[in-house]
Amino acid sequence: MKRVPVIIDCDPGHDDMMALVIGCCSPELDVRLVTTVAGNKPLELVTKNALNVLNYIGANEVPLAMGCDRPICRPKDHANSKLAEFRRHTGSIENGAHGATGLDGFQFPENNPKEPTDIRAVEAMAEVLRESDEKVTIIPLGPLTNVALLIRCYPNLVDKIDKISMMGGTSQFVFTRQYMEFNTFVDPEATKIVFESGIPIIMYGYDVTYSVLFDESVIRKIEEHKNQTSHMVAELLKTFMYRHNGAFPWLGLTDTCPIHDACAVAGVVDPSLITQSELLHVDVEIGGNYLNGATVVDYAKTTGLPANVQVVYRMDNQRFFDLMERCAANGK
Amino acid sequence: MKRVPVIIDCDPGHDDMMALVIGCCSPELDVRLVTTVAGNKPLELVTKNALNVLNYIGANEVPLAMGCDRPICRPKDHANSKLAEFRRHTGSIENGAHGATGLDGFQFPENNPKEPTDIRAVEAMAEVLRESDEKVTIIPLGPLTNVALLIRCYPNLVDKIDKISMMGGTSQFVFTRQYMEFNTFVDPEATKIVFESGIPIIMYGYDVTYSVLFDESVIRKIEEHKNQTSHMVAELLKTFMYRHNGAFPWLGLTDTCPIHDACAVAGVVDPSLITQSELLHVDVEIGGNYLNGATVVDYAKTTGLPANVQVVYRMDNQRFFDLMERCAANGK
Amino acid sequence: MKRVPVIIDCDPGHDDMMALVIGCCSPELDVRLVTTVAGNKPLELVTKNALNVLNYIGANEVPLAMGCDRPICRPKDHANSKLAEFRRHTGSIENGAHGATGLDGFQFPENNPKEPTDIRAVEAMAEVLRESDEKVTIIPLGPLTNVALLIRCYPNLVDKIDKISMMGGTSQFVFTRQYMEFNTFVDPEATKIVFESGIPIIMYGYDVTYSVLFDESVIRKIEEHKNQTSHMVAELLKTFMYRHNGAFPWLGLTDTCPIHDACAVAGVVDPSLITQSELLHVDVEIGGNYLNGATVVDYAKTTGLPANVQVVYRMDNQRFFDLMERCAANGK
Amino acid sequence: MKRVPVIIDCDPGHDDMMALVIGCCSPELDVRLVTTVAGNKPLELVTKNALNVLNYIGANEVPLAMGCDRPICRPKDHANSKLAEFRRHTGSIENGAHGATGLDGFQFPENNPKEPTDIRAVEAMAEVLRESDEKVTIIPLGPLTNVALLIRCYPNLVDKIDKISMMGGTSQFVFTRQYMEFNTFVDPEATKIVFESGIPIIMYGYDVTYSVLFDESVIRKIEEHKNQTSHMVAELLKTFMYRHNGAFPWLGLTDTCPIHDACAVAGVVDPSLITQSELLHVDVEIGGNYLNGATVVDYAKTTGLPANVQVVYRMDNQRFFDLMERCAANGK
Repeated sequence: MKRVPVIIDCDPGHDDMMALVIGCCSPELDVRLVTTVAGNKPLELVTKNALNVLNYIGANEVPLAMGCDRPICRPKDHANSKLAEFRRHTGSIENGAHGATGLDGFQFPENNPKEPTDIRAVEAMAEVLRESDEKVTIIPLGPLTNVALLIRCYPNLVDKIDKISMMGGTSQFVFTRQYMEFNTFVDPEATKIVFESGIPIIMYGYDVTYSVLFDESVIRKIEEHKNQTSHMVAELLKTFMYRHNGAFPWLGLTDTCPIHDACAVAGVVDPSLITQSELLHVDVEIGGNYLNGATVVDYAKTTGLPANVQVVYRMDNQRFFDLMERCAANGK
Repeated sequence: MKRVPVIIDCDPGHDDMMALVIGCCSPELDVRLVTTVAGNKPLELVTKNALNVLNYIGANEVPLAMGCDRPICRPKDHANSKLAEFRRHTGSIENGAHGATGLDGFQFPENNPKEPTDIRAVEAMAEVLRESDEKVTIIPLGPLTNVALLIRCYPNLVDKIDKISMMGGTSQFVFTRQYMEFNTFVDPEATKIVFESGIPIIMYGYDVTYSVLFDESVIRKIEEHKNQTSHMVAELLKTFMYRHNGAFPWLGLTDTCPIHDACAVAGVVDPSLITQSELLHVDVEIGGNYLNGATVVDYAKTTGLPANVQVVYRMDNQRFFDLMERCAANGK
Repeated sequence: MKRVPVIIDCDPGHDDMMALVIGCCSPELDVRLVTTVAGNKPLELVTKNALNVLNYIGANEVPLAMGCDRPICRPKDHANSKLAEFRRHTGSIENGAHGATGLDGFQFPENNPKEPTDIRAVEAMAEVLRESDEKVTIIPLGPLTNVALLIRCYPNLVDKIDKISMMGGTSQFVFTRQYMEFNTFVDPEATKIVFESGIPIIMYGYDVTYSVLFDESVIRKIEEHKNQTSHMVAELLKTFMYRHNGAFPWLGLTDTCPIHDACAVAGVVDPSLITQSELLHVDVEIGGNYLNGATVVDYAKTTGLPANVQVVYRMDNQRFFDLMERCAANGK
Repeated sequence: MKRVPVIIDCDPGHDDMMALVIGCCSPELDVRLVTTVAGNKPLELVTKNALNVLNYIGANEVPLAMGCDRPICRPKDHANSKLAEFRRHTGSIENGAHGATGLDGFQFPENNPKEPTDIRAVEAMAEVLRESDEKVTIIPLGPLTNVALLIRCYPNLVDKIDKISMMGGTSQFVFTRQYMEFNTFVDPEATKIVFESGIPIIMYGYDVTYSVLFDESVIRKIEEHKNQTSHMVAELLKTFMYRHNGAFPWLGLTDTCPIHDACAVAGVVDPSLITQSELLHVDVEIGGNYLNGATVVDYAKTTGLPANVQVVYRMDNQRFFDLMERCAANGK
């Protein structure tokens, strides 16, 4: 079987963990590089989490490169700024949905032998693109900082990118009342660079990720596999459901929970999982006082502006959960 | 009975028409002035419509003053600009929900004797405030241009304003995917001036107005009253339901329809109509490329910023419709 | 002789004082109204100063109306904000060029009988325009808040304005290194409204006002007239020269000093005083983080944008000083 | 003699040519890399020019890497946009000061053997930093795009940068009336990233570069050296003086001309050339409608913000011209 060459750019995070498991343990993908970016937590934490996951699931052969430690043009602490307070809050759960470590709920072994590459993420991405005979798919699961810098630093390599399958943004669905998803909020300028790059984009925003809600039955099925990856996945899904629903009580979720980033990987593994989507013009606000990072969609198709983003609305949930289970079972 | 002195600032518009009928025909209110502002249609059209309504319902004693013909800092054609295209579209209905005249669906008599005052809206408002012994309630139903200019031109009269009961903005409910209501979109700076004025504000945004949906049964009850006001109201409600639902097909409304502006007047007539509301910090985006006019709400109350707007979420619909009927029946 | 009907809008300030003397004591002008606006000092102080000057020079018949106490869209303390610190500083002179009172250097009699009108500035301006058979010239000497609001509140009266002869802005000459003059800095949005109004504008910015520098000999000539107005003028010019040059030491002025606002009045009294000027497209920055209020000039005339402002570069200084002296002598 | 390791980032341009000659032919510097960036002309042209200069002066051993072909967040044609028209014009000289090729006035040999490196500028810069035992000085002579991306892509290498000696910006001197220098205008966001990086910055803006004016006598002295580099330099200086003064006639320069970029290199070769400078807080406007890229300087030191830029005001002109001559003579 021809495997799809991909780069996964992430900031784990529980849902990034699931995305890494799907990416690294599905035979359909050839993960040539994992990169990290400051997002859910500072760069050091998310890098540590990504290294832990890769090592634990037996994907030590996948190189990991550290990326940007802050957004392109926004302050380093932007993700926790006053504006971020406007965007959402964390309810009664301290440290938010992902906890203090960014991956609360599982104790990884100490002395993880896996280390980041000597070169940084943007350069490592460029190397993968340069050395690949085929085009490569990039799967960004955090703020788009690394990917935007890749586009600007290497205009010569842009056409080696097959497509960008990203988790981020929102079109119809509004989770927070300040109208924006976390990843596009954290680095609005990077989002704009990506949206205007001309590279085909598939956007898994809140529209679809809040319609793909796993529940206890999904966890139980994963748990039945007795390998260590399935055990880790099950434990982290449990913790995430508990923390996520505590963090965002107004959503009214109790026994179900989204697993955002995993959607954007799953759709590359099996595009037939996408059951509803729409090609639209999407831009992003960058000049405002409050709403920078909000995706702006020509949903009525009246502006005459070119469609640049395939907005995903729905997936085949059952087959998505089956994929989660299958990949966890495939792990170490 | 002590009547509440009010000024109604409007841009009719079918829902403004209903608001004028409630305002002028309810014994609870003392409408001391009606002012007009460019919004749903250019100033000349909305002024003509307001004069027609006042004359037809027998409210010729209420003075009408023409106000601003454009937003404070935005281009004159802002309401029909490219940005407006992003905000919404008009479906298969040319000229939008209100039609070419701004009040399609009823033929008013020609040669309306009623004329605007010699002085303009902001000055006329100031005169009402100056001459009143009591504080006066202002009820803005269009872009907030006139009211904002009143606040800036007459800082000495601000404390003669009892409260501002406005139709505009949105907190939780998002009707358009670009996240904003029409009135606050048209004049964002005016909205900011009003929100920061210190005057008590009650905001009837899409949160509540799209939860107060009249249907045929409401129209029929109004029709049963044989006075000319009831007849006019019924005819215009029919046309509005048809046009509104054609204009915004994605809402899925067929046999029901909102009557936005009427809510903000009804809540002054009878505050007990409000069944759910919340006092919050609300600001408005003014610096962006796309989202100027979007109301920004500290819904999680985590920012520590002072609460300045009572956001209305729900009304007692049945009693609201009864009020509509009663006022129509009270008209000429 | 046919007298030119004018309205003077000011925020005294020493140079406003000179402008009031020229305006009220020159037989060429018919000052129908003086209005005040927050600028050099808060509204209460500048109003008190204007009343004092009018009373002392014997111009009690000129009505004075209080105007806006803050810019349209900027914070009330904008003129003294962090951004203002960037724009300039006050050297070793506390309270800046005009001192704590805004008109330091002369002791006006207590119990000034002159009082502001009952109506506010914008309304008073409208009344003058409405009642005038001829077009009226408006001479703004402070932030353009009042004039901009007049334009927005009374679109019907715009063509009763003959022209706007304003002190403000800068084209070639840059006094402060943050590239902007005080009046346009304080209310950038008002400046934009005025610049886009279509009304003919003559701009006396730093280009010309820093080329019209009076010295001791001018003061001495004025002093030789023994009337009380000349005495007051001479005293205040002395104080201003001292304070201004202390406040802005980097200008290297010691024995000479500008008298900004007086230029914009003098040019109406006698347009032949203008010896060099240019009709250009001028806009104003309003969207920035630092430079809002900076006038932006198509000096190369390459943009194709319409010329809207007559930028004054040079005046006949000697004849200007003669006019100052003559008007002071004409006063009480 | 210990040579200073430097990277020169340029967009030639006549003054960049002079900078390259000084950099590559002065024994004091060890030019480890030359990078190019879109600025004076598109990337392909400036790269071709840089390759031509390096080859012609005998600096083939210095590697050249192509950099960014556009600003980080601004449109690709930003340097020739409507806003650019506001900033300056090109007088009667088509194609501006540098001509159609970007380096008009000298015919380089065809079939230049020198080629860019396989890797791009940002990566090549990182490689130099990584492999250097000592800190390296970066000398940016065009828009700061490459340098800003280096800082964001390689936060781990920032402390390998000794200092940034840049040509760009302006503090006291205003050449264009829109208040900004070309390089900071073209990429304002990159400028902000550099200014906020914490790296020591020495800024050679218009303040100093318009005070270092060469004349015919300088050219003649260079011409006397009979090597091919001196010949090339002399020819290009002649053309530049003619074109520059034709392009900016309002400067009133006829027999003298600036050589901007050369200053920023010369100051690294011999810091004692700097005779006047000041350490100040400097930021850059990025949020405006017109003035993005204008450097904003706390010249009065009243804001309390940290000083981050050494602003150069004056150099020792004679010794600077001597250096130009000496380096030209050192070339092939």
